[in-house]
Amino acid sequence: MKETIIIEKEKVELRKPILIEGFPGLGVVGKIATDFLIRQMKAKKLAEMYSPHFPYYVLVSKKGSIRLLRTDFYYWKNETEGNDLIFLTGDTQAQTVEGQYEIADHILRFAEKKGVKLIITIGGYRREVEDKPQVVAAATDPETLSKALEVGAINSPLGNPIVGTAGLILGLAKFKKINALCLLGETLGYLPDLKAAKSVLKVLLKIVKLEVDLSELDKEIDKSEQLIARMQRIEEQRMVSAQRRREAAEGGRVTYIG
Amino acid sequence: MKETIIIEKEKVELRKPILIEGFPGLGVVGKIATDFLIRQMKAKKLAEMYSPHFPYYVLVSKKGSIRLLRTDFYYWKNETEGNDLIFLTGDTQAQTVEGQYEIADHILRFAEKKGVKLIITIGGYRREVEDKPQVVAAATDPETLSKALEVGAINSPLGNPIVGTAGLILGLAKFKKINALCLLGETLGYLPDLKAAKSVLKVLLKIVKLEVDLSELDKEIDKSEQLIARMQRIEEQRMVSAQRRREAAEGGRVTYIG
Amino acid sequence: MKETIIIEKEKVELRKPILIEGFPGLGVVGKIATDFLIRQMKAKKLAEMYSPHFPYYVLVSKKGSIRLLRTDFYYWKNETEGNDLIFLTGDTQAQTVEGQYEIADHILRFAEKKGVKLIITIGGYRREVEDKPQVVAAATDPETLSKALEVGAINSPLGNPIVGTAGLILGLAKFKKINALCLLGETLGYLPDLKAAKSVLKVLLKIVKLEVDLSELDKEIDKSEQLIARMQRIEEQRMVSAQRRREAAEGGRVTYIG
Amino acid sequence: MKETIIIEKEKVELRKPILIEGFPGLGVVGKIATDFLIRQMKAKKLAEMYSPHFPYYVLVSKKGSIRLLRTDFYYWKNETEGNDLIFLTGDTQAQTVEGQYEIADHILRFAEKKGVKLIITIGGYRREVEDKPQVVAAATDPETLSKALEVGAINSPLGNPIVGTAGLILGLAKFKKINALCLLGETLGYLPDLKAAKSVLKVLLKIVKLEVDLSELDKEIDKSEQLIARMQRIEEQRMVSAQRRREAAEGGRVTYIG
Repeated sequence: MKETIIIEKEKVELRKPILIEGFPGLGVVGKIATDFLIRQMKAKKLAEMYSPHFPYYVLVSKKGSIRLLRTDFYYWKNETEGNDLIFLTGDTQAQTVEGQYEIADHILRFAEKKGVKLIITIGGYRREVEDKPQVVAAATDPETLSKALEVGAINSPLGNPIVGTAGLILGLAKFKKINALCLLGETLGYLPDLKAAKSVLKVLLKIVKLEVDLSELDKEIDKSEQLIARMQRIEEQRMVSAQRRREAAEGGRVTYIG
Repeated sequence: MKETIIIEKEKVELRKPILIEGFPGLGVVGKIATDFLIRQMKAKKLAEMYSPHFPYYVLVSKKGSIRLLRTDFYYWKNETEGNDLIFLTGDTQAQTVEGQYEIADHILRFAEKKGVKLIITIGGYRREVEDKPQVVAAATDPETLSKALEVGAINSPLGNPIVGTAGLILGLAKFKKINALCLLGETLGYLPDLKAAKSVLKVLLKIVKLEVDLSELDKEIDKSEQLIARMQRIEEQRMVSAQRRREAAEGGRVTYIG
Repeated sequence: MKETIIIEKEKVELRKPILIEGFPGLGVVGKIATDFLIRQMKAKKLAEMYSPHFPYYVLVSKKGSIRLLRTDFYYWKNETEGNDLIFLTGDTQAQTVEGQYEIADHILRFAEKKGVKLIITIGGYRREVEDKPQVVAAATDPETLSKALEVGAINSPLGNPIVGTAGLILGLAKFKKINALCLLGETLGYLPDLKAAKSVLKVLLKIVKLEVDLSELDKEIDKSEQLIARMQRIEEQRMVSAQRRREAAEGGRVTYIG
Repeated sequence: MKETIIIEKEKVELRKPILIEGFPGLGVVGKIATDFLIRQMKAKKLAEMYSPHFPYYVLVSKKGSIRLLRTDFYYWKNETEGNDLIFLTGDTQAQTVEGQYEIADHILRFAEKKGVKLIITIGGYRREVEDKPQVVAAATDPETLSKALEVGAINSPLGNPIVGTAGLILGLAKFKKINALCLLGETLGYLPDLKAAKSVLKVLLKIVKLEVDLSELDKEIDKSEQLIARMQRIEEQRMVSAQRRREAAEGGRVTYIG
């Protein structure tokens, strides 16, 4: 494989599709949000993208079968008059500067071919979170941006860099005359951040005018908070023990020197 | 040399060949196992592969002659009704992400051209070894995997990454409709691990339904164990001496301070 | 985007244009000087250059709009008989060796197409600055160099390396038979160095025989010096406090040990 | 510049030329030896090679002129029946794996075009030097190797890696049916090693059956040895002073603690 390739799995006509992209990145916010929608809305596989710019390992998937790292396009048919959706999620991002540009380019060409009208990319925004994570928005144009600001997102600070595919897609979308919007959930980014993903989803669903039950995500948030609390207790105990050992050792050493 | 090239050394018709690949990697398991079979079965040189993605040094080989880093294909003609074998071994792996994909691609195209029916790649699996190393297997498909499981290999954990050529060949094999199997010998991976290679060979030989005398490998295992034991004794003595020097020095210093 | 591209924003005939380049680099001297001229002379956008060799992030610009990293060409029409000017400034430099050569090449081809007669690149020269920063010059040829030496620049030491686009443009200009001159302002390079930029501008304006009011730059220099002085006072206080804390702690420790 | 290019400076017919290559590397042995021959034999410029794989800076050369990093081919016409010589020296080596292969390839294609019969590459061999540096040899074939062994070079250890252009040229020469020889002067490699270069030159001159006065090189060796001796005295004094300061400080501290 010398080139990035997209293999279509199903030929399907999509009506005014909106593409929603969430790759692994800061706090895994984009991937968590997109994967959740795919599962919850029972979206179907549309295409797979493979690239020599992805890391050079493979994954063992179910039943011991091996697969290349890839990114997946899914689609969801809207049974009302609204927009169909395309979801884009994946294992990884490209490993080199040039690879990042190439991947974003392939996504945009695929979007263009499918008649995509709007692209929404999702990511994390590193910042101390007060109360609950806000959603920071930026877009290819003010009109697209206003769709996010009207439903609760806040404006991105001037000069803020948006790293990776979530940003490059917007930068390159202008050349294709496709409008694109980036939604970034505030997160410290050290751990997979389900709360940040939820904040983004609430804004996103208002923009695409759809209702999706987020209660499953709430359950996962509860579970992950219990897990983190447990890890913190273990860490605290570890530090207390270490401190006691240190004091004991220092006490001993003083005696010895004196 | 701008491109990876494969130079065929002998034109030979092979019957339903199985390709066995073992490149340097974790614990050198793959290369040790493959090189052993090549020597023991007196396989003959089939082709050489050179690539600008290999490291940029050359090796001095016998009689002071210099050669590029390369990978070698060998073949072995089966005198019964069974499969012929192709072996693939080499000095090195590709140095870049894109190079890794390209090398795996060239191997697969060569395999396709030679009518290869099954590819078996060999590598190491980093894990504390209890008693004797187990063989972890993964494959392009459940049917191919079952060939390994039936003769003693165990299933790879879900999500396990397989790094480098041994993995990428499997990932890319699907595009060529070639079945492929990966056998990973459990190893700590710090030293060349002949025992892990032996475990893999026992499973592999059952799969390809061949008998090869492994007693030569047992001798090498004995030698390497004696060597490691000697190195450990030297290391222990070195640490004891260092500890005594430290105590002497601290004793002196205490006197000096006091 | 697989290739570096230059998108022209306005079709304009330029008379004997001189191209002035200042990218981010040591002490940000080149970018500060070029951006100042663009603002002060009210230069107009001529073209934008995008490249997959630039870093893979985008910037949020005014009103929440996103844009790719890029470099911008501006032009200024000279209302007298003198040369028109083209300015080249940008967000960044290329990220790889090969990218650096490619970017410099694209700039030169664009310059050639626009009939550029002379290129002046601006950068910083790392050196302890005595009194006020001198301007170090080097050129494609002695005649071009003399234009800088005659108006106060000094000769670059033999063997001095000039890193990045400011240097490569000169190296590659010879192949296009374009004369080019590099002006480097002496700077320690740790902070954006407005004084070094001003020194360069004074030399540059004499070479291109233009007068531009630098008093705005003087105001910015005053502001930046006040800022640095304030930062230094804060740093000194911080160090004094730290020293006191250390002494207090050591005092305590001595008592404790004794 | 997207490709490596070789620009011929003079059209000249060469008789059975031998190419001698010495790039910067371990102990700068290759470059010192080759540059010395070019100066001493008054060789003339034949061609220049430029490449986007060289580092992205330029050098200020005499009279403040700037030039790209490059490698230079020189030629020397033999007034007797013997071989003409081509010398290849340069500022640098390629910066990437793929670049290294490409550069070596371009050199070989140029050598082929010029009818080169033998290539001799020069480098350093990292090893503790006893008495005077020996010359380690390796070659494309035993016959070529014997030319070096017969005049005092010693055989390279089996498996020894030869890194960079000096090695790759030999590895790739086989594909062009050109014989090539590598001469490596023993050196610790920390400083430019003129003695190692002299050892190589003595062997090389016997192989090409030429006499060149090496007394100029002896003078440079004397100068460099004086320089190194002076640096060592300075370093020793510095260490003695540091030791005294440390003792004084510790003495003071002991008093203070006590």
